[in-house]
Amino acid sequence: MDTRAVILAAARTEFAAKGYDAASVRAIARVAAVDPALVHHFFGTKERVFAAAMALPFTPGDRLPEVLSGDRDGLGERLLRMFLDVWADADFREPMLAVLRSATTGERGAAMLREFVGRELLGRVADALDLPAEGRLRLNLAAAQMVGIALLRHVVRMEPLASASEDEIVAVVAPTIQRYLTGT
Amino acid sequence: MDTRAVILAAARTEFAAKGYDAASVRAIARVAAVDPALVHHFFGTKERVFAAAMALPFTPGDRLPEVLSGDRDGLGERLLRMFLDVWADADFREPMLAVLRSATTGERGAAMLREFVGRELLGRVADALDLPAEGRLRLNLAAAQMVGIALLRHVVRMEPLASASEDEIVAVVAPTIQRYLTGT
Repeated sequence: MDTRAVILAAARTEFAAKGYDAASVRAIARVAAVDPALVHHFFGTKERVFAAAMALPFTPGDRLPEVLSGDRDGLGERLLRMFLDVWADADFREPMLAVLRSATTGERGAAMLREFVGRELLGRVADALDLPAEGRLRLNLAAAQMVGIALLRHVVRMEPLASASEDEIVAVVAPTIQRYLTGT
Repeated sequence: MDTRAVILAAARTEFAAKGYDAASVRAIARVAAVDPALVHHFFGTKERVFAAAMALPFTPGDRLPEVLSGDRDGLGERLLRMFLDVWADADFREPMLAVLRSATTGERGAAMLREFVGRELLGRVADALDLPAEGRLRLNLAAAQMVGIALLRHVVRMEPLASASEDEIVAVVAPTIQRYLTGT
């Protein structure tokens, strides 16, 4: 194995054992028996090590700044469209399904997914919106709406949702996400 | 194995091979090498054979008539509360997670879940509400909201959703379900 592959194998071990929050680039480097600077050199942040270790083609958080900037009234629609686009990409969907499957299999996989999504996605949205504590539940419920759509559309392939256009879904669901996020 | 166990093993084989719609009590009886009348005697309908084969403690559809009767304005809340109650029950949740896991693993498991939920749950709601074709997508999206809540609350255990009370969830989500189902 080349060094990159050794680091990714070490990362999978470390994330599976400790979850996302408690795992560190330093510990991953230790398991891989390389210098932490080399992990940073290859991947950058912990978030990017995670995405690479899970074979995700990009880091979901990369697209957030664009979604979170712009007018507040269009936030629900922008967030929903980003989510639908990402899941329409089979290169993203297949590895993401593996992460989801591991979450349904035991607490370790669940912790990994919970902490990654909680910190890198929902945490950033909450910070950008300056959400009060009460708003965190609404943010979870917005995430639940979107995750449920991904599951029924791409995994269970429930009709007519599986064949609906993005615009048809947005027309019904964007107002829901907007209401959950901003109360309007 | 006693006859009941033989029938359930045959049912699991039949549902996994053909999905829910194409499977029949007659074919299950044939695989089990018993008379179809015996399957009916032990379990009743195909829906009940399915629930027993998947180790569900009850048939979700059993609770629907009560939810679907009563005033239309309270339908979203009643449906959501039924769903939350059912998933709060570990005896239901664990086998249901096994069904969900099998749906994320391959098309056969997905077809089984899709057809069972489509026919025995969503189909009945659509019939009771006399939904137009356009309403079917909204019904899928209501299901997506609820399935996503089950996943994040009980599997991924995302906070604060995992610890939220049923009433807190209902306060935010019941209006969504109501809007999806009746457009109000």
